Amino acid sequence: MAVGPETVSQVIHPVAGVRIGIAEAGIRKKNRRDLVVFELAPGSTVAATFTKNQFCAAPVRVAKEHLAAGAPRLWLVNTGCANAGTGEPGLADARESCAALAKIVGVQAREVLPFSTGVIGERLPMDRLVAGLPAAVANLRADAWLDAAHGIMTTDTRPKLSSLQVEIGGKPVTITGISKGAGMICPNMATMLSYVCTDAVVARDDLQAWLAASVDQSFNRITIDGDTSTNDACVLAATGAAGVIIPARGPAADAFRAALDTVMRELAQAIVRDGEGATKFVTVDVVGGRDTQECLAVAYTIAHSPLVKTALFASDPNWGRILACVGRAGLPDLDVAQVDIWLGDVCIVKDGGVSPAYTEARGAAVMQQEEITIRVELARGGARDRVYTTDLSFDYVKINAEYRT
Amino acid sequence: MAVGPETVSQVIHPVAGVRIGIAEAGIRKKNRRDLVVFELAPGSTVAATFTKNQFCAAPVRVAKEHLAAGAPRLWLVNTGCANAGTGEPGLADARESCAALAKIVGVQAREVLPFSTGVIGERLPMDRLVAGLPAAVANLRADAWLDAAHGIMTTDTRPKLSSLQVEIGGKPVTITGISKGAGMICPNMATMLSYVCTDAVVARDDLQAWLAASVDQSFNRITIDGDTSTNDACVLAATGAAGVIIPARGPAADAFRAALDTVMRELAQAIVRDGEGATKFVTVDVVGGRDTQECLAVAYTIAHSPLVKTALFASDPNWGRILACVGRAGLPDLDVAQVDIWLGDVCIVKDGGVSPAYTEARGAAVMQQEEITIRVELARGGARDRVYTTDLSFDYVKINAEYRT
Repeated sequence: MAVGPETVSQVIHPVAGVRIGIAEAGIRKKNRRDLVVFELAPGSTVAATFTKNQFCAAPVRVAKEHLAAGAPRLWLVNTGCANAGTGEPGLADARESCAALAKIVGVQAREVLPFSTGVIGERLPMDRLVAGLPAAVANLRADAWLDAAHGIMTTDTRPKLSSLQVEIGGKPVTITGISKGAGMICPNMATMLSYVCTDAVVARDDLQAWLAASVDQSFNRITIDGDTSTNDACVLAATGAAGVIIPARGPAADAFRAALDTVMRELAQAIVRDGEGATKFVTVDVVGGRDTQECLAVAYTIAHSPLVKTALFASDPNWGRILACVGRAGLPDLDVAQVDIWLGDVCIVKDGGVSPAYTEARGAAVMQQEEITIRVELARGGARDRVYTTDLSFDYVKINAEYRT
Repeated sequence: MAVGPETVSQVIHPVAGVRIGIAEAGIRKKNRRDLVVFELAPGSTVAATFTKNQFCAAPVRVAKEHLAAGAPRLWLVNTGCANAGTGEPGLADARESCAALAKIVGVQAREVLPFSTGVIGERLPMDRLVAGLPAAVANLRADAWLDAAHGIMTTDTRPKLSSLQVEIGGKPVTITGISKGAGMICPNMATMLSYVCTDAVVARDDLQAWLAASVDQSFNRITIDGDTSTNDACVLAATGAAGVIIPARGPAADAFRAALDTVMRELAQAIVRDGEGATKFVTVDVVGGRDTQECLAVAYTIAHSPLVKTALFASDPNWGRILACVGRAGLPDLDVAQVDIWLGDVCIVKDGGVSPAYTEARGAAVMQQEEITIRVELARGGARDRVYTTDLSFDYVKINAEYRT
């Protein structure tokens, strides 16, 4: 199951300066694309954000080291095994995989960033991974974004891409990205995994700052099950091949950042739409809070509530469960008599009680829809924020009770 | 489904000074016991704890007022309707139901404490509730505890009782209680609903202090779905009919409190065992924390994780999901290389990585059991705490997607 149209972007624009190679290495299962290599043109700048889970995976630690050491030229991604909870041997595996790829391509090991996704707690099958590298390198080409989106999938049911071309200073600039993830999704910094590239020229510090801001409004605003992964990573490269220089501020920076935010939001929302067992795409909008933090506290309490999520699955306008979430979100001296709650364009709670105009039929009509907005109006300040989430279905339990078997 | 033996206490001792009457009022469904009246002997002391959900129900607000106003003589409990999210009309309904019962029995309305459980956001059917009161009062008798436990059930599949008789100063003292609840269970102060009575003589301030301490180690340590209810209440009465005076401290107080804690813990655990769709009873034990708060942060992160809960349902020793929870629980400067994790008596994670002695077969053997202990050793301090929870099954989704229909 998945919610909404599969292809967010109708056209996937290749990014000049980026080539992608895919291979079937048999990491976990045979006849499955499970190894993806990105090659960046010399001089590319790279920014990244990683999970804040303290049990972060070995590849996350190595990627951070290599990113600090210099300018990455290659990204190496495997599925089927997360290489997390594997201690020192896992770290050695991550380093060795970088060295093996670097040797084939003729760069330094520190110019490779490793990424892994899959089951936690198992060692990487290094022999099969290394054996798959030559095929991936031999396949490097510019128009392999869709294949790459397939190549990084695990419990995802469909590939996730977003691509935009905008004119900046009269010249076209491309931003294209892919993402994956359907479970263990409540990113705190970035989600597992997203790769975005542009052909603009962007200084590394600007790239990092803009990526962090963009992640905060996209991947850091989605949740499927509240479980922050050990492997989350979001990486952004600017190859400069378009020759368009994006300065730190001004109209060009604004245009570039707006395009980047759009691509990132689409990639993040694509993860929610393909959430494990998802039958609904739900936007939780909280307005009128004293600050962003309390808006998010209310929004996440609703988005993580198994009772709200099962009611969404049942298309049941059981709004008492939403109201109970607002009441337990921990807001200091909340005046519940000021709270309004909307389901789509139907006001269900007015001044803390059932809205006089509300009827079960009107609530049910909204809940039948595939895309639903829950809006909470706190009426105690000017802050607002929103998160995106899914329902909780039989298939969510099925997928997670059967994963690994 | 439910986990473990149904009857925690083999013998239910009536409590001298307490009579209970049950009626079928047809609040929500016909031919169902849905109205319970407790009558306390004059001079009884009463203590109570209530939900901290800010959208607390009308009966919770009225019960607090009446408790502050004097010595309660009656408790009035209905199922089928929570009278929450009902605004001023709901408050008026709660007051009117107290007045109606008071008139029949010949006491003041403020001597009645009202309690409701069921669907949120609907008005109480006052005509049917009031019409049911005379039958409940006519049925008042001392040995109706089991009937009362049935009479307060909603999605519960079985009644929950605990009863103890202990000798204090050479005389028998009885403590008997009932509880209900299977969903929207993550009490923060007390759970919806628990009624405990003793025939000892206890001063009201002592009773309140001991109840609060006992709730904190019982009902405030269980979670089924992380959803704190709007109606949680736990009430404790001491009728004094046994003539045994329990002073504020000393051996008699210690003996009484130990017995009270046992009854409360059994009632709280009975709720977890009957958790919606539960197939497992899970104890999450966190030791070696710097303080209780961080032990609880880790324990609740594990207990609320849908990924851990579905793995428990599948009897799958997918310990990477537990490890990921420890990593995202927000402990400052956690040294993951110090963390050990145990499943029952099997060490699965040693020093932050897979234990050398661990085999999947040993983990699977523990996960097959109905009662499972997950123990996390943080090795950074002397604090410890534990919570009790359930798995997440197909039936949890079924129950909550179909409730109300």
